[in-house]
Amino acid sequence: MSTPGEERVRWRPEPIVERVEAGPERVRVYEVSPRDGLQAEAAIVPARTKVELCRRLAAAGLRDVEVTSFVPPSWIPQMSDAEDVLTALGHQDGVRTVALVPNRRGLERARAAGARDVAVVVSATESFARANLNAARDAALDTATGVVGAAREHGLGVRGYVSMAFGDPWEGPVDRGVVAGMAAALAQAGCSTVALGDTIGVANPGQIHRTVRAVTAAGVPAEAVALHLHDTYGQALANVVAGLDAGVREFDSSVGGLGRCPYARGATGNLATEDLVWLLHGMGIETGADLDALVGVSRWISARIGRAESCSRVTTALIAAAGQ
Amino acid sequence: MSTPGEERVRWRPEPIVERVEAGPERVRVYEVSPRDGLQAEAAIVPARTKVELCRRLAAAGLRDVEVTSFVPPSWIPQMSDAEDVLTALGHQDGVRTVALVPNRRGLERARAAGARDVAVVVSATESFARANLNAARDAALDTATGVVGAAREHGLGVRGYVSMAFGDPWEGPVDRGVVAGMAAALAQAGCSTVALGDTIGVANPGQIHRTVRAVTAAGVPAEAVALHLHDTYGQALANVVAGLDAGVREFDSSVGGLGRCPYARGATGNLATEDLVWLLHGMGIETGADLDALVGVSRWISARIGRAESCSRVTTALIAAAGQ
Repeated sequence: MSTPGEERVRWRPEPIVERVEAGPERVRVYEVSPRDGLQAEAAIVPARTKVELCRRLAAAGLRDVEVTSFVPPSWIPQMSDAEDVLTALGHQDGVRTVALVPNRRGLERARAAGARDVAVVVSATESFARANLNAARDAALDTATGVVGAAREHGLGVRGYVSMAFGDPWEGPVDRGVVAGMAAALAQAGCSTVALGDTIGVANPGQIHRTVRAVTAAGVPAEAVALHLHDTYGQALANVVAGLDAGVREFDSSVGGLGRCPYARGATGNLATEDLVWLLHGMGIETGADLDALVGVSRWISARIGRAESCSRVTTALIAAAGQ
Repeated sequence: MSTPGEERVRWRPEPIVERVEAGPERVRVYEVSPRDGLQAEAAIVPARTKVELCRRLAAAGLRDVEVTSFVPPSWIPQMSDAEDVLTALGHQDGVRTVALVPNRRGLERARAAGARDVAVVVSATESFARANLNAARDAALDTATGVVGAAREHGLGVRGYVSMAFGDPWEGPVDRGVVAGMAAALAQAGCSTVALGDTIGVANPGQIHRTVRAVTAAGVPAEAVALHLHDTYGQALANVVAGLDAGVREFDSSVGGLGRCPYARGATGNLATEDLVWLLHGMGIETGADLDALVGVSRWISARIGRAESCSRVTTALIAAAGQ
């Protein structure tokens, strides 16, 4: 048998590229770690670190980054520095920086801070709307479409989220007819993309197929549908494969798997950007991202928030393979 | 916003079943934890615990279990109790217990211990054959086909493994023509199933499709192809989805993610059985396994080998959701 000395990995692991027939040439990776990631971490990260994170993500080739949220500080203290982050960040060529806005007040704050792109959130379930958005489901949708209309009038780009689009911790499986209706309403109001959120990570490939089909049947073009998958049960990448098969061309992820749904107990982090990029590059799909650079950002931010190691499987495995 | 008290999960998480069109009705889950799992753990587990593990796995509905390996004890001390485990286990109705045999001597020991089903291993790469099988690649294939022939003459069922069928730590991407040739040789020699091993977990969905196609084109029927996927880079379930799409109907997994390739530095555990079963059941595919029972086995064996918690994402998430 081999001795330990002979066991050294001589091949530097990297994605083995094998294109999947009929697969897309390119997919958009929508980075959510500065907002969805850091808002869920216990540690309060200084604005300057958030700005540095956004700059490092852009330097790693990510072109669409959700950088902060203009929610009332009393709701999410981690986002109380939204103005500081957005103004300090300024505009970077070729990078779309998106700010989440929960209501008109948030939109006004975002505009005052120079936002060019914003995102709104609705919930496909009544329970999560009341727990997370502090409103009834339909009232939250009215608020969101109103914000979308106002943002469009001011020439801002808008992204819409439908949270709890697959399974809800209080209600279980979600009615895809409701998801399709809300996605269509957001698209009609002016959202360029509608992200379907598996907020607690319980979706499966069959459900991804059927829900995406229901959403496109409701009038939302497939190219306007994104998937925001959480990896709670380790199913996120399996669902990405199903999403690609269903025609989805934009996926949300968070470097180092930063973030968790702060309201759904038991939920774990977002899909790690490195793990998503490894899969996509392996399938011969371009993302524009530099995997090595992402691994560096993952290690850096994980250390900054006091994590012993990154939550990304790819980053962890690459570090182990390198014997670091 | 909700207060912690309101955040309790009221819905007990379980796979949301949504059949995938054209998906199979049933898939075979081939359990490898007693062998591939425990041989890689540092702790030496007593034979009685291994037997108890096999019984609990069978009670959880798993019908195909690789229980031990008749390798020379000097190679893998963890398997030095192969005779004790197989004889103590005896035969259980409806459960196929498989013993790995590296050579003729191993086959004789297995037969003497009452084995009815055995498994042989070859390597698709020269480096891994020399490091893991102590022989040149082609010599190892000759040994394996000889063992298969002898086992068949004695009326035993035989499973074949092609290790390093996708990526090799020393050589990088693997020639699928070699994989197809070795798989065909094992099938012709009498193996009822040939498992393609992603020993270091670097395969991707495109490679799974192309390699399975190359293997079936070489004359191995799709129903005789299995996938043995490691989850090193978190890609195993994405590859299962690709494997199902390519016609594969048997997948290897290890309860609690027990096991790692002991010779490939940086490799982590096998695909966790609970995570695989969650995916398959969610897709409306029957496995015969009881997920709750598997979670119980996962927690039990993890504690037995001194792990703070199971390496299965599903088990970890279900425990968190239950607030345990």
